[in-house]
Amino acid sequence: MEEEMKRVYLDHIAATPLHPLVLEAMLPYLKDNFGNPQSLHSIGQEASIAVEEARESVAQLIHANPEEIYLTSSGSESNNFALKGLAIAQRDRGTHIVVSAIEHQSVLHSVKNLEKYGFTHSLVPVDKWGMVNPDEVRKAITQETILVSIMLANSEVGTVEPIREIAEICRSHEVFFHTDAVAAVGNIPVDVSELGVDALSLAGNQFYGPKGSAALFLKKGTRILPFIDGGIQEGGRRAGTEDVAGIVGLGIAAKIAEREMGSRAGKIEPLRDKLIELLPQKVEHVILTGHPEKRLPYHASFCVEFIEGEAMLLNLDMQGIAVSSGSACTSKALKASHVLLAMDIDHALAQGSLVFSLIDETTSEDIDYFLEVFPPIIERLRKMSPLYTKYLEEKDK
Amino acid sequence: MEEEMKRVYLDHIAATPLHPLVLEAMLPYLKDNFGNPQSLHSIGQEASIAVEEARESVAQLIHANPEEIYLTSSGSESNNFALKGLAIAQRDRGTHIVVSAIEHQSVLHSVKNLEKYGFTHSLVPVDKWGMVNPDEVRKAITQETILVSIMLANSEVGTVEPIREIAEICRSHEVFFHTDAVAAVGNIPVDVSELGVDALSLAGNQFYGPKGSAALFLKKGTRILPFIDGGIQEGGRRAGTEDVAGIVGLGIAAKIAEREMGSRAGKIEPLRDKLIELLPQKVEHVILTGHPEKRLPYHASFCVEFIEGEAMLLNLDMQGIAVSSGSACTSKALKASHVLLAMDIDHALAQGSLVFSLIDETTSEDIDYFLEVFPPIIERLRKMSPLYTKYLEEKDK
Repeated sequence: MEEEMKRVYLDHIAATPLHPLVLEAMLPYLKDNFGNPQSLHSIGQEASIAVEEARESVAQLIHANPEEIYLTSSGSESNNFALKGLAIAQRDRGTHIVVSAIEHQSVLHSVKNLEKYGFTHSLVPVDKWGMVNPDEVRKAITQETILVSIMLANSEVGTVEPIREIAEICRSHEVFFHTDAVAAVGNIPVDVSELGVDALSLAGNQFYGPKGSAALFLKKGTRILPFIDGGIQEGGRRAGTEDVAGIVGLGIAAKIAEREMGSRAGKIEPLRDKLIELLPQKVEHVILTGHPEKRLPYHASFCVEFIEGEAMLLNLDMQGIAVSSGSACTSKALKASHVLLAMDIDHALAQGSLVFSLIDETTSEDIDYFLEVFPPIIERLRKMSPLYTKYLEEKDK
Repeated sequence: MEEEMKRVYLDHIAATPLHPLVLEAMLPYLKDNFGNPQSLHSIGQEASIAVEEARESVAQLIHANPEEIYLTSSGSESNNFALKGLAIAQRDRGTHIVVSAIEHQSVLHSVKNLEKYGFTHSLVPVDKWGMVNPDEVRKAITQETILVSIMLANSEVGTVEPIREIAEICRSHEVFFHTDAVAAVGNIPVDVSELGVDALSLAGNQFYGPKGSAALFLKKGTRILPFIDGGIQEGGRRAGTEDVAGIVGLGIAAKIAEREMGSRAGKIEPLRDKLIELLPQKVEHVILTGHPEKRLPYHASFCVEFIEGEAMLLNLDMQGIAVSSGSACTSKALKASHVLLAMDIDHALAQGSLVFSLIDETTSEDIDYFLEVFPPIIERLRKMSPLYTKYLEEKDK
């Protein structure tokens, strides 16, 4: 009889599983309630009510008003919408944008492509923990600056940024402030008015909601260019037939997150801390990346010296353990992470990146299993590593 | 005991219900197979394989290559992607675009907003049946023209356009040709190479697939600007974590449509013909809109004189019958349809628009039920109509 392999999923930042109640809430909209929310008849109106209820739950999760929530299909879309939409709509006021060096590619590539429309941008550096210094943002703002975008938390190294301070600087300079909060919302408390942000991106698949359902918060009265032109959906700013089931799922996921975020973190964080404590004891030459305290509760990331992330990842996968080596959006590109390089981690070490991101279902046994399986993998991989051989030779000298 | 109201859904153009096999195929990706297709581990790779299989099925449905299919979140997104992406990428070749007067708002508003970037456009007229004359397209093309976009079939009046002839004209003028085939694909045979189009939009919710899952076909080698900047998804042209379950649903819906399109049409078309034949016999002053023969098999549309579409629609809804008065994307705007106005239907008559679009489940009894319920509704509404009173007075003179 073949024994089934143990499965341990530690890749929250790539995707979370659907909460069972989320799927349950979605099902009616994948069956009988298939109406188009823009239709005037009953079956359409039922769908419309469901969409507006979901919008309300999303708004509540971040302490916004429902009319400030624009439903989109991904965090990347929300970031594109915010960056391009805000920049082009405010072009008469200036053409300079400030972002950090560790933003997600959807922010970095958006500002890069805005160059076509006459915009320039500055990259704010981060310290060795991936932390943005608000003073650096202040220094980067010029007379031409109209928009600043700094992420709330980085998914590759877990660091939570000082968003409130940065937002205050932007406000005092009369510059719009957007934050990519995809890794944060639903996992740690986020209050848009307390933070003082003008725009914020979030995504359901980071808090046990469906893929394909995300949102952009946009403070009431903020001028933005529509992202998808067409029908009157989302106030004419994001046309297209609504993915009703996905939106309903996002809404329920938001509701559950609001209620359970604290207890989830309370359960996950000690397991994460155990990993951070024990991994460097079990394996030599392992360095924690990101801020030691100011980090997402589900997040532990490391660089393992002398080995490439991909090799570790594939060997762990053979043992049933799913982790990542950085952002899923670029993982197949197999390049050293721009986030780690910006933190002044050298190129060779950055290749050894390993990101553990725990989910609600993670148990203490999962962590034990990983800690048992991992050291022999590393031993084997290091034996084959020319870098490690070289290190040993030099050490012996 | 309360008797349950009969429910008749005749609003295919707003949304189709999910085919049961589509939902069945989606469910594993809403449960255990929740991986991110960009992850390198097994659970991610399972999702990746599912996405690529779906891409293949979509390609097969329109006789394209899988690498020519870009997955999007709606027909409107596909149209925006095509229009804006092609125009801006080809700007060095010219700045003029040709579209028809009866395009979907996502095409019309896209070309309107391209004016900001220095583009102009011409609107090609249609005849009284909503038919585009290919010669009019030829006349509209100038030295500056880089792109033509004419829909394959119009969802409000059902007319199927002479796309092959138009594509040939575009080819001979070396102008890109896009067609919005959202109302057509999955319902009538569509072959991109036979038609000779460079780009084509389609949407799953028009052929019993999920909302939120759509695609853009783009002929290999065609230069286009990315629509969502970020990760490497969709060849870097449309970033964002894939809605795996929705994409799987789209793929299965495409597979089923390819197999069953003919038999579906064979079943629906006679019911549609029955409606077209009997409605004008049951109710006076009813005019068929759109082409009498060259129209979508599931589609019957009319203008009912002296009454507003909304009133008919709400009264029918009270009897459990769901129909529409035009495109769902603008229905809540309650304006006379630009499609009907372009067909030279006068403004008052255009207000009486009624669109019947049949689905796979539609039965002959459904049509009978409608034909029984509708005449007394019309009688009642006309009694309250000042326009009808005026008509009777003038007739009696």
